[in-house]
Amino acid sequence: MKKELKIPRIKDGTVIDHITPGNAVKVLRILRIPRSTSSVVSVAINVKSHLGKKDIVKVENRELDPHEVDKIALIAPKATINIIRDYEVAEKHRVRLPDEITGIVTCSNPTCVSNANEPVKSRFRVINSDPPRIKCYYCEREPEDISERII
Amino acid sequence: MKKELKIPRIKDGTVIDHITPGNAVKVLRILRIPRSTSSVVSVAINVKSHLGKKDIVKVENRELDPHEVDKIALIAPKATINIIRDYEVAEKHRVRLPDEITGIVTCSNPTCVSNANEPVKSRFRVINSDPPRIKCYYCEREPEDISERII
Repeated sequence: MKKELKIPRIKDGTVIDHITPGNAVKVLRILRIPRSTSSVVSVAINVKSHLGKKDIVKVENRELDPHEVDKIALIAPKATINIIRDYEVAEKHRVRLPDEITGIVTCSNPTCVSNANEPVKSRFRVINSDPPRIKCYYCEREPEDISERII
Repeated sequence: MKKELKIPRIKDGTVIDHITPGNAVKVLRILRIPRSTSSVVSVAINVKSHLGKKDIVKVENRELDPHEVDKIALIAPKATINIIRDYEVAEKHRVRLPDEITGIVTCSNPTCVSNANEPVKSRFRVINSDPPRIKCYYCEREPEDISERII
């Protein structure tokens, strides 16, 4: 009669750990899950951690591309990315925002040149990494809710 | 070095099982998770089931209200709701759409009286439960993607 949620170990894939509590759903949105995969994805929200609470996302049969990692850094600056290969943690690294991010966040200023129909990619300077704060390279506007502006 | 996602049994809460694969994120949206809770929530997407694939959502310290159950029936007609009390499954039932649903889905017809500024609640007749199909009581319009119309 016990109802357990058994989540088997994954053979290959990625574990995103130490996500800011409550932000796992935003990580799923960034990874375009469930649309992008038919493999198993498991998520834990508000689990206990030595630093308080955290979320975890596990995705089978997928390694993240650098753009996805930068997007995750913008909403979960303490996240760690563990790449699993053949049941072992093959690589483990913390997300790290680069000094500049281009093409993954839209500027919140409707009159910014990056929002005009010009061949100009959005471009932001990272002014703080935790909590993440970014400033538009063109118009200096700082978006209030970055997660709403991620493409 | 193994990276396991341990999901402990829950003492009190709800397990929503047999969710249409890929629809767990929609269930979270219906339950307003993570905004609505600081308790642990765990999610499994695309896990194997005897009927193919399914999603599972486990929410600690929460029992669903009937409106939430009706909303889940609209996007996951095969779902079962297991209410856990003191580590035991205290109640188990399948979601079941009522013959009529009021106030939880908006009509996709912008000129429908239920979308005017009138004191008229949206009202739909359920014409099929799996897959769910509903028809507006007032204008007969059948929404194409019900999940997009859930309030």
